[in-house]
Amino acid sequence: MSRPRARLLSIGDELVNGRTVDTNATHLARCLTDAGFLVVGIAAVGDGHGALATALTAAADDADLVVCTGGLGPTDDDRTRAALAEVVGVSLVEDAGAWKAIRRRWALLRPGQEPSPSNRRQALVPTGAEVLANDRGTAPGLLVRRAQTWIACLPGVPHEMIAMAERLIRILPRRFPGLVVPRVAELYLAGVGESLVQEHLYGQFDGEDPQVGITVSESGHLVLRVVGAPAAVRARLAILRRKVRPWLLPAPGLAASIIPTLAARSLTITTAESCTVGLVAAALGSVPGASAVLHEALVAYAPEAKRRRLGVAQAAVQEVVSQACVEAMARGARRRTGADVAVATTGLAGPGGGSPDLPVGTVWVAVADIHGVQSRSVRIDGSRARVQSRAVTEALLITWERLAASRTARGGIIAGKAVNDVPR
Amino acid sequence: MSRPRARLLSIGDELVNGRTVDTNATHLARCLTDAGFLVVGIAAVGDGHGALATALTAAADDADLVVCTGGLGPTDDDRTRAALAEVVGVSLVEDAGAWKAIRRRWALLRPGQEPSPSNRRQALVPTGAEVLANDRGTAPGLLVRRAQTWIACLPGVPHEMIAMAERLIRILPRRFPGLVVPRVAELYLAGVGESLVQEHLYGQFDGEDPQVGITVSESGHLVLRVVGAPAAVRARLAILRRKVRPWLLPAPGLAASIIPTLAARSLTITTAESCTVGLVAAALGSVPGASAVLHEALVAYAPEAKRRRLGVAQAAVQEVVSQACVEAMARGARRRTGADVAVATTGLAGPGGGSPDLPVGTVWVAVADIHGVQSRSVRIDGSRARVQSRAVTEALLITWERLAASRTARGGIIAGKAVNDVPR
Repeated sequence: MSRPRARLLSIGDELVNGRTVDTNATHLARCLTDAGFLVVGIAAVGDGHGALATALTAAADDADLVVCTGGLGPTDDDRTRAALAEVVGVSLVEDAGAWKAIRRRWALLRPGQEPSPSNRRQALVPTGAEVLANDRGTAPGLLVRRAQTWIACLPGVPHEMIAMAERLIRILPRRFPGLVVPRVAELYLAGVGESLVQEHLYGQFDGEDPQVGITVSESGHLVLRVVGAPAAVRARLAILRRKVRPWLLPAPGLAASIIPTLAARSLTITTAESCTVGLVAAALGSVPGASAVLHEALVAYAPEAKRRRLGVAQAAVQEVVSQACVEAMARGARRRTGADVAVATTGLAGPGGGSPDLPVGTVWVAVADIHGVQSRSVRIDGSRARVQSRAVTEALLITWERLAASRTARGGIIAGKAVNDVPR
Repeated sequence: MSRPRARLLSIGDELVNGRTVDTNATHLARCLTDAGFLVVGIAAVGDGHGALATALTAAADDADLVVCTGGLGPTDDDRTRAALAEVVGVSLVEDAGAWKAIRRRWALLRPGQEPSPSNRRQALVPTGAEVLANDRGTAPGLLVRRAQTWIACLPGVPHEMIAMAERLIRILPRRFPGLVVPRVAELYLAGVGESLVQEHLYGQFDGEDPQVGITVSESGHLVLRVVGAPAAVRARLAILRRKVRPWLLPAPGLAASIIPTLAARSLTITTAESCTVGLVAAALGSVPGASAVLHEALVAYAPEAKRRRLGVAQAAVQEVVSQACVEAMARGARRRTGADVAVATTGLAGPGGGSPDLPVGTVWVAVADIHGVQSRSVRIDGSRARVQSRAVTEALLITWERLAASRTARGGIIAGKAVNDVPR
C-alpha cells in the first residue's frame, strides 16, 4: 500500500518573522514518518485569518492528513478554530467536555479564580470535531474530517504539542485502516565524515524499501537511518553494520556511549577544561546515570589555575595551546582526582587573540588513562560557539576511541540499536 | 509604502521527514523582516523535482521575492537548478565564472585533484541568472527574475547560507528601489515571566508602527522587539524601558550581562556545580572575554567532591539537595579559589532518584560574594535536559540580581541596546 500523504501547517507570526524556529513541524514530521505517513510538505503562515484559511485549504486539498500547530490560544490572534470551521464548512459550537476541562485546569492552577470569557472561547470547536484532551495546557486539540482528508489541530506550545502528538499518533491508525507502520532503525557513527561514509556506502542509499538516510546530529555524531518493511530493514542493517563497523557507537551519541561503557567497566572519568569551559563535563553529565562515573571535573581557564590545580609545569603553561600543556592537564586531572580516565582541552575559541602562528580555532584535546596519555590537535573554523562545540566533540571522540581500542575482543558493546523494534 | 511580500522555500527530504530542523528559514525570515520585507509564508518540500517545481511556482505566483535554500549540491538529488530554470522558462547554461570559482576551490582544498563532472554541474545556471559567489563552499547562489518576482536560491548548508544571505540582503535594495529598511530595536529582560510582561505592557502590542513582539530566548531571557519607523521605534522604546526597568538586562542574555559587569568592576567569578555539571561555567564561558573574569570552576557532582574540594560539612553533604549544601558550596568555592563571586547549584535532574519529599526537578542555587550568600530553590518540570538548562538560568539569574542590586545608584549599565541602530 502506498503511504498516506501528510502535510503540516505551523501557525504564528513568530515563525514567519523569524523569531522562533519551527521545531514543532520537525517533531511532527518525524513522528508521522515513523508512523507510516509520507510527509510531502511543511508550511508556516502568520496569524492573519485570511492567509491561514487559504493555506489550510491548499494543504487539505492535496493531502490525506493535515496537522496544524498553533493559534489555539485564548487571544484575538488565535484564529485556528475559526479558520478550521470555515474551511470544513461548519459552525463553531461550545464543547461541554472541553469547557469542563478548562474549568478543572483553572481550579487546579488558580484556585478561586474563574476562567475569563476569552478562555471560554478555547472550548469552541467546529461541529463534528473530536476533541483531543490537553493535560498540559488549556487549549484542547481537534480532529475533524473534510471530504477525504483528516485535519488535526494541536497547540503550538512545544511541550503541550509533543504530549498531544503522541496521543494523535496512537489514534490515527483507526482513521487510516491500511496504514503500515514501518520498521525504523538507526546506527550511530563517530570518527568519520559524512562524505566518506557516503562514498563508503555507495549504492546503499538507492531504492525505496528500505530507505537509508544519513544526517549529522547536533552533538557531532552521524545517524544512519533505515526505514522500511521489517525484513528489508533487518537485511540492510546487517550489511550496513559490517560496512561501518569501525565507526559504530553503541548508543545515540559519544557521551551516551562513553558513560555506560565506563560504568560497565567500573571506571570513573574526570575533565580538565580550558577552551570548552565545562562543556565536556556537561556533555557527559547530560547522560542519565552519569553521577556514578563522573564524580568531579575542573575548569582550568586561567594559566594559573592549570598550574595550581593540575600541576602543569610553568613551561607548558606558557605555551598554553600546546600538546605539552593538554597532556599535562589530562595527567594532572587524573592524578589529582584519582579518576581512571581524564580528558582535557585547551585551545583558542576566539573571536580575539589569534595570530598567524596560533590562529583562532586551534584546539588540543587529550585523554589519559592507566596506560598513558594520547592527544591530538584540530583546527576548527567559525564562531566561538562553533569552536567550543566542535572541541567538545573532539574531546569525547578521543575518549571514545581510547575506550573502544581497549575493549575486549568480544566487542559486545558495539551494536546498532533499533529504535522502533515493536514486534508486529 | 507597503512592504514587498517575501516567501521562503526550503528544499530537502531531511526537512520533510523530520530529520533536520529548518533553522535556515528562521534565519532568512528574520534577516528579510529586518531588511523591510513582509515574510508571508515559509514552505518546505522534499527533493523530488515535481513537488519542487510546483512549490516554487506557487510561491513565485504570490510574492515579490522568493528565497530558496538547498538542493544546489552536486548529486542527483540536487534538483533546484533544473526546477528553477523550468519555472522561469529558460534553459540551463554553464557560467564561466562559476566554473572557474569551483576549480579554484578544488585547487585550494584538494590540490592535484580535478573536480568531477558532477561538480561541474554546479556551474550550470538558468540563462540570465546572476551568480552569487560562495566563498565557503562549491555551490554558487543564484538570483533570477520571473515576471514581477525575484527568485534567489542559496545553498542549504547553514554556514554557507548565512554568509550568502548577508550578501543577498545587501544587493536586494537595488531590485526593490522603494524598500524602506525599518529600525529594529530589542530590549532584554530577565527575572519575569512572559505572561506577566504581557499584562504589564497591556496595549503596547497593538498597532502596526511600531510593531512590538515578545519572545522567550533559548537561554531563558525575554526579548522585547520593536520594529518600525525610526521615530516611532525611539518613542516606544522610551515608554517600554520605563515600564520594564526592573527586569532590563544591559546585553542579550544573562551571561552576556554578567561578564562585562564583572569586568567593569574588576571582579572575578567561579562556579561550584552539581546538577548542572559545568553548564553554568560554560554559559559564562560562551561570552567573548570571559577568560578575564572566570579563571576556574569546579564540577562537584559526588558528595565526596563537595566535601573534599569545597569543604562542605558532612551534615550538609548528607542532605545534598538543600539550602545548607548549596550555600556551603558557594562559600567554599569562593574561599577556595579567591574569586570575588561564586555561584553554586545542586539538585535532582532525574530522570531517576526522585521521592515524594524530594521530587525530580528540585534545584537549589546560591551566589556568594563579599557581603554574604543568597540562595533559593525552584521546582522544574520536564526532562533531565530541561531541568539542567532551567537550573542554569536560575543560577545566572540569582547572580545577575545580586550584581544589579549592588550596582551604583547611577545604574549606567542598565540600558536597552538597539541592534540595528544605523543612521538613516
